[in-house]
Amino acid sequence: MVKIVGIAGSLRAESYTHQALHLAVQRVEALGAEVEILDLRKMNLPFCDGGDEYPEYPDVKRLQESVKQADGLILATPEYHGGISGVLKNALDLMSFEELSGKVVGAISILGGQSNSNSLNQLRVVMRWVHAWVIPEQIAIGEAWKAFDKEGKLLDNKLSERLDKFAVSLVENTRKLRGVG
Amino acid sequence: MVKIVGIAGSLRAESYTHQALHLAVQRVEALGAEVEILDLRKMNLPFCDGGDEYPEYPDVKRLQESVKQADGLILATPEYHGGISGVLKNALDLMSFEELSGKVVGAISILGGQSNSNSLNQLRVVMRWVHAWVIPEQIAIGEAWKAFDKEGKLLDNKLSERLDKFAVSLVENTRKLRGVG
Amino acid sequence: MVKIVGIAGSLRAESYTHQALHLAVQRVEALGAEVEILDLRKMNLPFCDGGDEYPEYPDVKRLQESVKQADGLILATPEYHGGISGVLKNALDLMSFEELSGKVVGAISILGGQSNSNSLNQLRVVMRWVHAWVIPEQIAIGEAWKAFDKEGKLLDNKLSERLDKFAVSLVENTRKLRGVG
Amino acid sequence: MVKIVGIAGSLRAESYTHQALHLAVQRVEALGAEVEILDLRKMNLPFCDGGDEYPEYPDVKRLQESVKQADGLILATPEYHGGISGVLKNALDLMSFEELSGKVVGAISILGGQSNSNSLNQLRVVMRWVHAWVIPEQIAIGEAWKAFDKEGKLLDNKLSERLDKFAVSLVENTRKLRGVG
Repeated sequence: MVKIVGIAGSLRAESYTHQALHLAVQRVEALGAEVEILDLRKMNLPFCDGGDEYPEYPDVKRLQESVKQADGLILATPEYHGGISGVLKNALDLMSFEELSGKVVGAISILGGQSNSNSLNQLRVVMRWVHAWVIPEQIAIGEAWKAFDKEGKLLDNKLSERLDKFAVSLVENTRKLRGVG
Repeated sequence: MVKIVGIAGSLRAESYTHQALHLAVQRVEALGAEVEILDLRKMNLPFCDGGDEYPEYPDVKRLQESVKQADGLILATPEYHGGISGVLKNALDLMSFEELSGKVVGAISILGGQSNSNSLNQLRVVMRWVHAWVIPEQIAIGEAWKAFDKEGKLLDNKLSERLDKFAVSLVENTRKLRGVG
Repeated sequence: MVKIVGIAGSLRAESYTHQALHLAVQRVEALGAEVEILDLRKMNLPFCDGGDEYPEYPDVKRLQESVKQADGLILATPEYHGGISGVLKNALDLMSFEELSGKVVGAISILGGQSNSNSLNQLRVVMRWVHAWVIPEQIAIGEAWKAFDKEGKLLDNKLSERLDKFAVSLVENTRKLRGVG
Repeated sequence: MVKIVGIAGSLRAESYTHQALHLAVQRVEALGAEVEILDLRKMNLPFCDGGDEYPEYPDVKRLQESVKQADGLILATPEYHGGISGVLKNALDLMSFEELSGKVVGAISILGGQSNSNSLNQLRVVMRWVHAWVIPEQIAIGEAWKAFDKEGKLLDNKLSERLDKFAVSLVENTRKLRGVG
């Protein structure tokens, strides 16, 4: 069974990034994958100091172990200043090849303004660096404050269909690349 | 008088990134600029939660005020996984146009392995996004563990000359673009 | 007097890229700059073979000489497949530091679909490489087929204002950085 | 059987890019793939004008047909000014989703100076745009003029091993993603 870990790089209480991650997770679960969401708002992670050991922060190990056992990842980031959030990058900095290499990754970005690919491009370069696979399908949700309805669904049907294809690609290609059922 | 703020995106005690920043600062001061170093290791900054107010963290205001009053910045980052450190990105996330727009920026990256421009390119996109100017001269120090001598100077003369030109460009062009003495 | 050279990286007869370049040129001229447009549709340029000499193609010299004598450039590219057009990149490949270094550059991209910064980011990296300055203000015109009115003006007022600011920044900062009147 | 098409984005007679492509092709063939090299030096391709039809240039069709029938691609580019060669980008501009979507791509760059990932990153963004898969393994050959021995082999053993892994990844993952033998 395909195991996916979902991480959203936002610490906001009412976060569109978590909402988008949630929508992606629903779709991926419907396709038969097992998903664990690591909610950075509920984890106590330190800033990465370049070292390997964070004995006072057991959540570092939890992050590392969950990601290590996964086949794939959904990484959702708010785009801050044309880039990945520092929060998400820091979580990635706390891991390395051991956890991330060979994983199949779907990337989502959420923007306050117009849609753009800046943070998705950066995620692609970063995840490549640790030899992960980032699927070609990617999601950028612009003007996030008006993108969702009251039930948290995407108002734009085209975008919603893109998210469907994103989920299918992530699950199917994780199966192919990882050889899991 | 040109005011420069220097920020290194590493929290390591013995950090090559801080060492590189120090070398750049020396050169920039020798050219008549006034430099303030904001040492993130000695500041207590929170993870950015997308909000504007961090009343429990007075260092956020200190960061914002210092950068706001500066004409230029030296941003030095360790390259983690082909990207800017989360630590540095998070510090930038805590600021916005008010502090960063129109600033003249020199970017430096420090790598454990071979030299590369990944994090410099990302910094360029991010700083452009807040309408800062990033000077064309940029410094990537590869294999940092063997790049410095015991006194903290660069062993590679060519790289050292690049750093000279970097400093000259930063000070001269900050003068031109900001109209300061 | 500020001298600007404008180049559009499209060979289409009815090209939105040339239209956008034209609008930028009008604004830049109104601010007192002298502009020469090099129309690649009317020039006979070879594919760059990595060499320096193209005796059978006098337009290579013409391209090089015009750019060499300019203070600044407006580079407008259609975004093909998330990148600069090969046509524009090839024209840039036919030049080098001698022509491009130190120039102040404004970058514009034209897209058939949604606006995005992919080709602008690439132009920024490429022009930095030859030590040119790319101004922070940049223009991406999405869904170009419905962006212009019959007289060739931009229908979106916000975008038109962005182009105003783009032109002001290009001319003013070329003056500052190049020390020309 | 896995079908791979190799394209080198250099028109130089004695080209290191073609040499690097040749080394990659040898390895990929040894792993059981069928390879066709499309030598742009021997093809007569026009500059892309944004249109679909180039009746005077039958090589456009040849390029399109060969790539369309392939499962994977090796794209090798000289890095000119921190970017893909215009020659290679123009060849890609002459194709689209029909030819490129779903293909598995290995990317190689050749540099006169120090190794860097600028053109590889651009290729990754461009190929993602047409929904191709770019494998995480990538090759940058710096200071190409001293990288090869008289027989055209790589002098640096580590780099040669990287190329081995690149070839294995390309063939194995093309098999997995395309479901071919």
